[in-house]
Amino acid sequence: MAVRIGVIGAGAIGKDHARRINHVLSGAKVVGVSDVSADNAASLKAEVAADAQLFATGEELISSDQVDAVLVTSWGATHEQYVLAAIAAGKPCFCEKPLATTADGARRVVDAEAAAGRRLVQVGFMRRYDAGYRLLKRVVDSSIGVPLMVHAAHRNPSVPEAYVTPMAIHDTLIHEIDVFRWLLNDDYVSTQVVYPRVTTKSHSKLRDPQIILLETAKGVRIDVEVFVNCQYGYDIQCQVVGEEGLANLPEPMAIQMRKDASLQTPIMTDWKQRFIDSYDVELQDFINAAASGTASGPSSWDGYVAAITADACVMAQEQSGSIIPIELPVRPALYH
Amino acid sequence: MAVRIGVIGAGAIGKDHARRINHVLSGAKVVGVSDVSADNAASLKAEVAADAQLFATGEELISSDQVDAVLVTSWGATHEQYVLAAIAAGKPCFCEKPLATTADGARRVVDAEAAAGRRLVQVGFMRRYDAGYRLLKRVVDSSIGVPLMVHAAHRNPSVPEAYVTPMAIHDTLIHEIDVFRWLLNDDYVSTQVVYPRVTTKSHSKLRDPQIILLETAKGVRIDVEVFVNCQYGYDIQCQVVGEEGLANLPEPMAIQMRKDASLQTPIMTDWKQRFIDSYDVELQDFINAAASGTASGPSSWDGYVAAITADACVMAQEQSGSIIPIELPVRPALYH
Amino acid sequence: MAVRIGVIGAGAIGKDHARRINHVLSGAKVVGVSDVSADNAASLKAEVAADAQLFATGEELISSDQVDAVLVTSWGATHEQYVLAAIAAGKPCFCEKPLATTADGARRVVDAEAAAGRRLVQVGFMRRYDAGYRLLKRVVDSSIGVPLMVHAAHRNPSVPEAYVTPMAIHDTLIHEIDVFRWLLNDDYVSTQVVYPRVTTKSHSKLRDPQIILLETAKGVRIDVEVFVNCQYGYDIQCQVVGEEGLANLPEPMAIQMRKDASLQTPIMTDWKQRFIDSYDVELQDFINAAASGTASGPSSWDGYVAAITADACVMAQEQSGSIIPIELPVRPALYH
Amino acid sequence: MAVRIGVIGAGAIGKDHARRINHVLSGAKVVGVSDVSADNAASLKAEVAADAQLFATGEELISSDQVDAVLVTSWGATHEQYVLAAIAAGKPCFCEKPLATTADGARRVVDAEAAAGRRLVQVGFMRRYDAGYRLLKRVVDSSIGVPLMVHAAHRNPSVPEAYVTPMAIHDTLIHEIDVFRWLLNDDYVSTQVVYPRVTTKSHSKLRDPQIILLETAKGVRIDVEVFVNCQYGYDIQCQVVGEEGLANLPEPMAIQMRKDASLQTPIMTDWKQRFIDSYDVELQDFINAAASGTASGPSSWDGYVAAITADACVMAQEQSGSIIPIELPVRPALYH
Repeated sequence: MAVRIGVIGAGAIGKDHARRINHVLSGAKVVGVSDVSADNAASLKAEVAADAQLFATGEELISSDQVDAVLVTSWGATHEQYVLAAIAAGKPCFCEKPLATTADGARRVVDAEAAAGRRLVQVGFMRRYDAGYRLLKRVVDSSIGVPLMVHAAHRNPSVPEAYVTPMAIHDTLIHEIDVFRWLLNDDYVSTQVVYPRVTTKSHSKLRDPQIILLETAKGVRIDVEVFVNCQYGYDIQCQVVGEEGLANLPEPMAIQMRKDASLQTPIMTDWKQRFIDSYDVELQDFINAAASGTASGPSSWDGYVAAITADACVMAQEQSGSIIPIELPVRPALYH
Repeated sequence: MAVRIGVIGAGAIGKDHARRINHVLSGAKVVGVSDVSADNAASLKAEVAADAQLFATGEELISSDQVDAVLVTSWGATHEQYVLAAIAAGKPCFCEKPLATTADGARRVVDAEAAAGRRLVQVGFMRRYDAGYRLLKRVVDSSIGVPLMVHAAHRNPSVPEAYVTPMAIHDTLIHEIDVFRWLLNDDYVSTQVVYPRVTTKSHSKLRDPQIILLETAKGVRIDVEVFVNCQYGYDIQCQVVGEEGLANLPEPMAIQMRKDASLQTPIMTDWKQRFIDSYDVELQDFINAAASGTASGPSSWDGYVAAITADACVMAQEQSGSIIPIELPVRPALYH
Repeated sequence: MAVRIGVIGAGAIGKDHARRINHVLSGAKVVGVSDVSADNAASLKAEVAADAQLFATGEELISSDQVDAVLVTSWGATHEQYVLAAIAAGKPCFCEKPLATTADGARRVVDAEAAAGRRLVQVGFMRRYDAGYRLLKRVVDSSIGVPLMVHAAHRNPSVPEAYVTPMAIHDTLIHEIDVFRWLLNDDYVSTQVVYPRVTTKSHSKLRDPQIILLETAKGVRIDVEVFVNCQYGYDIQCQVVGEEGLANLPEPMAIQMRKDASLQTPIMTDWKQRFIDSYDVELQDFINAAASGTASGPSSWDGYVAAITADACVMAQEQSGSIIPIELPVRPALYH
Repeated sequence: MAVRIGVIGAGAIGKDHARRINHVLSGAKVVGVSDVSADNAASLKAEVAADAQLFATGEELISSDQVDAVLVTSWGATHEQYVLAAIAAGKPCFCEKPLATTADGARRVVDAEAAAGRRLVQVGFMRRYDAGYRLLKRVVDSSIGVPLMVHAAHRNPSVPEAYVTPMAIHDTLIHEIDVFRWLLNDDYVSTQVVYPRVTTKSHSKLRDPQIILLETAKGVRIDVEVFVNCQYGYDIQCQVVGEEGLANLPEPMAIQMRKDASLQTPIMTDWKQRFIDSYDVELQDFINAAASGTASGPSSWDGYVAAITADACVMAQEQSGSIIPIELPVRPALYH
């Protein structure tokens, strides 16, 4: 039987996920929609989920006996309440980033899920589902010896004026924060931020680029260049240096040409395209686990740790050059 | 409503397609199965299509009013009869290669479908659905000027004793034969086969490698190296040379490593992995068209042309060095 | 003691070689210059060889007891006479391509040198001295098994109106003709030329591109794309396919950039830059052998075989599609 | 007239440089040799400089009127005295690294040369003469906008027990210290060293790998991974990130193969091969300048700055994590 899914938040990402569930993936269908904007909800229904029921509130959707599992794709500030409600209802819940707007909020989700005693929450860290990172993890786990260092870069062609310095952590680095924990099966113990010369392509409220240096419990040193006005493209680089060799994240598939006195391969400029395939894989994983009444993939613990780490990185931005310790609470048994 | 699909031929490929339809793709379900081996049919049902009905014969399956569309994945020699039956029943039909075992057989399918007056048949040339070829086609159509030449290679690590010289055409080159017509939007006018020195890794009934030279109606010259005991991997290469530049088929995604005094990226050795993703895309395309009662993608005309071309290439093998003309009949309006 | 070199032909290449000898290489100096244009000779002397003596004729230069060895960089039609004179004088002689303007002329040089009983002539096939081809030869000789096929390309961005169809052989393919014999340690037995659609960037007296198919005595099949209006760059490609693997000629060193939504590496457009380093190596080799009164590197036999092969390829152009046999005379013992 | 060169220090590097001067380069000859070991001096003379005169001491060689210019390739501890003597004699002097064993010693050379009022000293930082770095510098100066960051790595397959932690600076990083100043036309203002987990391939007196973070006066941030037991090869990486794009140091030329299920290019393992061509270019530059009685290339000021920077980096090793300022004295006018 198809998993019956309710979608809370019918904006762009909610609609796109609903489309996936109804028209790309297998084993689920969207049966309910809720949005603070009735227009949004109606539009989602009209475009990709004709059979879905409209709910006045997320809470009503969650409690409906027509709904087996919940997608939280609403405004970030509302994530915590809906995820807590889904946990209370015992229903699997996929929550887009962030799990909560504060580490304390994420902690409340962790505590509720731990109290429930089973995994019910998957956080939308889609990179773990990217084919390139998955291949990389396999190689890191098997072929290059113990990891010692990671050299990484997260580059956007440009960002709008609204993107200010701390967003380099909360909106950009957050993906590396999560994916490296998973890639290395490790946790962070400290962070430091250093600022290179500011590019003239940036604006007054954004120090760009930045270099974030992370240290893990196992002693791996990670350097991440975050450069969100790099002009040339959306480019995600990751090189893991192990005791016996190095491994690189693959480039996205593109056509190599010889043209105009140049051996050239296009680089993406639209971040939305970079991990688009991983959304399919991530949601199929959610559907598969939800069919058994549980959740897998990035957990609320992972969301909580990401929040704690991000807070430390923002402090490291504010005290540029200083090494900021990252201390994690004890990990509940559910997340071992 | 989900398209109700009947599968004729429950061997490895039939079972795999049924799994796709029921557990990966969207918009269809397998409702019927038929196989000359009742065990095969039962096994498919047990493993991937619990709800499916077993039919004693393909013909019964095709005529069942529970079946909207048909997958022909049986033994090659039976393809023609089932496809003709599906056309007669007015049901969309996906047929694995070959469409028929002879060009005349393929012609009969073309004639039947043309008489039916609408596309009902999709032939399983999956490369047209490969992400790499699709990107390549986009670039060829837009960025390198008029195509003048194609340099290609189709290499397998090794083949068993049963693989004899003509199979280099019927089982190997057949994919290039189809995909280059599509890539170039062109047809062949001649072929020539030349034999390099035979590799000592081959056996007495197989001249390996071979070079096949094709000429198209628009004057494009194509050289394809077919080398099925190349030892090192399963490797598909394609370079299109246009008036203004060159474009290369991308390599499959793999992790580049620095290790053991070598900058190295793994090359696939199992051909089954190379185009595995394209099977999903091809079948989803079939499902989408079948939902409207028709078919798209590689047509029976394409299957027929492939058969004619392959016959000419085998003649070119037998008369090595000679240029063998390829003459195509008039293309029915349905396939314009 | 420095080898005392006389230069016959003080045009661009003669002057450049004289500069090499006097200002880059070790063990030789230019002591004499001759040119049909006294201005050219004076200019060479003034710019790069202040101490050199001017000779009225090449013959006087050759016979001077101040001259140990001779560089023939004059107009092609005069090469044969000067090389024969140098052989008669028993002096080592470096001769730019072609050794003679006809195969018969080259034969006369071979006969004279064979009669002299020792190597005195080096022909200016500089690719044998290119670092990339040298690395490739080492790998072909050791690491990929018996060679079976070569896929090659020789591309220029454009050529002037004066460049007509046979020049694709005599001026362009001639380099591949020589270097593949050396690379494979093999000789040609047949050639065939096929013409793809003509690029609109060509002109009325030039069929461009062309594909030349060569077969060797050991059964290696070589395909060379000659495309002299390819627009995008000067690009020399060579891939050798062996029984156990493939090897590629390296690209010239260039800086890979990420810029303008493209991963890009410049491709050369000026052919004069492509093998410029190999001129140094080739001439140093000449100097070193000349110091012992002999010659090494590409021999007059190689020049003769290149001429015979080129003649067959031109015939293959004229009889496009036909396979033209290449028959070589018996190789004199001197060249074994 | 050939520059007459005296070589002080007839060990491996001295002999190799003498061979270059006499048998590869143009415009100079080795006329004198001195070594504390008479055997070494005699061996150099016998093998590569038969006409050279043997001198009992470096000072005698320097003062000989047969000697126009001096090569100091003796034991590091003696460099300063010979360079000072050459300056005193007004003779151009090429000095292998280090210019002196202390920053104070290097300062004395700077002061002496500044007092002499003209460039007489070239320090053997050969990377500035490497074709790859030269191409990179051209691109950095012209094509990627203002440099903001450099990501670099210096990796050796392994080092002996005698190689202890500070040697990662003095023997390894020293090359990056010099070449990045030249590449960026910039100076350092601070350094920091962080230690990743130690590889099990290291030994007890060596923390390996290390990451050195340098900051320049213009605000460029440089991270250099020094990993001298990386196992896989000798690998020098350098990526410059500018406001408008990135540029990478080219890999050394090598043959790409497809073999053994791998797309593979050999990586060097012997550091002596990596920059071997640059020694030729560096010494030819020395000869050319010496012919005019002066010196160019890396100056004694560069040697002095390298020493100061290296001292700060060693302090940064000892105070791992701390940011150590680098303060340079005023640059004498001679070095502007």
